[in-house]
Amino acid sequence: MELYGFFRSSTSYRLRIALALKGIEYEAHAVSLPRMEHRSPEYLAVNPQGLLPTLVDEGRAYAQSLAILEYLDERYPEPPFLPDDAAGRAVVRSLAQVVACEIHPLNNVRVLKYLQATWNFSDADRDAWYRHWMAEGLQKFEATLAHEGCAGRFCFGDRPGLADICLVPQIFNAKRFDCPLEAYPATLAIFGRCLELEAFETTQPKYQPDAF
Amino acid sequence: MELYGFFRSSTSYRLRIALALKGIEYEAHAVSLPRMEHRSPEYLAVNPQGLLPTLVDEGRAYAQSLAILEYLDERYPEPPFLPDDAAGRAVVRSLAQVVACEIHPLNNVRVLKYLQATWNFSDADRDAWYRHWMAEGLQKFEATLAHEGCAGRFCFGDRPGLADICLVPQIFNAKRFDCPLEAYPATLAIFGRCLELEAFETTQPKYQPDAF
Repeated sequence: MELYGFFRSSTSYRLRIALALKGIEYEAHAVSLPRMEHRSPEYLAVNPQGLLPTLVDEGRAYAQSLAILEYLDERYPEPPFLPDDAAGRAVVRSLAQVVACEIHPLNNVRVLKYLQATWNFSDADRDAWYRHWMAEGLQKFEATLAHEGCAGRFCFGDRPGLADICLVPQIFNAKRFDCPLEAYPATLAIFGRCLELEAFETTQPKYQPDAF
Repeated sequence: MELYGFFRSSTSYRLRIALALKGIEYEAHAVSLPRMEHRSPEYLAVNPQGLLPTLVDEGRAYAQSLAILEYLDERYPEPPFLPDDAAGRAVVRSLAQVVACEIHPLNNVRVLKYLQATWNFSDADRDAWYRHWMAEGLQKFEATLAHEGCAGRFCFGDRPGLADICLVPQIFNAKRFDCPLEAYPATLAIFGRCLELEAFETTQPKYQPDAF
């Protein structure tokens, strides 16, 4: 197994957590976003979308972190990332997608760069944009947890899964941009409990070989 | 089964297609985005995320269209939206996520409204933003189809599935914003073949009772 990622990329961090939870060893390839290595001909030959991360398994390369998380869960079922029943699975996927479809796409590096380069956003403008979508998304995450009543120690019961895997890297991003978080106590409590687990703790950005 | 949606919402259209492909009858509830009905206390009681669409099945409400598409495929397996093998499923999900995580989140109505209300984007600025992310995303979609060599009549082989269900509503949006599409011939050919199917054709925005 091989993982192409970048230490600070939250979608790469999702996969580091997932691989650690599954107990899968892999070879890590660092692809620098600031140096634009994800747009190099070499990387585009692996992943024509030019996005991180890419997972290579049995000689095939896979793109899009949510698709890869589902792939890992299908191919390596233990421990499972999703509940057994269709209703529970839908709730967990919905929480994961609040992060993956409502927060992250608006706040990733290439969007922030485009706002600054093309639309003359200052650093302060960029940070206001970032915090706006983080707040919009985390409010939805917290509201869904309350509405579903699904959380135990983690987002769904007492086993970490797909929603936790997406949540934790997003909270790291939120902290990096000084986003206020006090309005999301249930979400933050789950974040804290995740970080008590080695799979979430040891895979965090600052411990990666390419961190700077 | 009940579906809360809006005629022009591309994520609602995804579910209309999906339900038609599965041959599932449902009661449709129109929720007007321009009239902000998705933020009404009545709708928030159904879906605390305040987003469209919501599907209600067996008395339970489900949020996030990708999660709902997976739920429908698990509960009502025929015809399947995903291939049988994990590798094929990952490719189809990856294509669906190019639409659902790379294009749609940047171009949906609340983002466009925020750009205009808070960042003083003119209508022309808004359209340039829209076309930028559409082009970025469709280039990735077309490149993935070419790289994987997975397409037949549809995105994966000769049966319409998850990727087609996400693609078609996005192309309707692209046409509404006059986005150039000639650079994506494989994608557009699939779009055309989808619209030959009743499930894609009859569910399009203009035929919905709430269309204006």
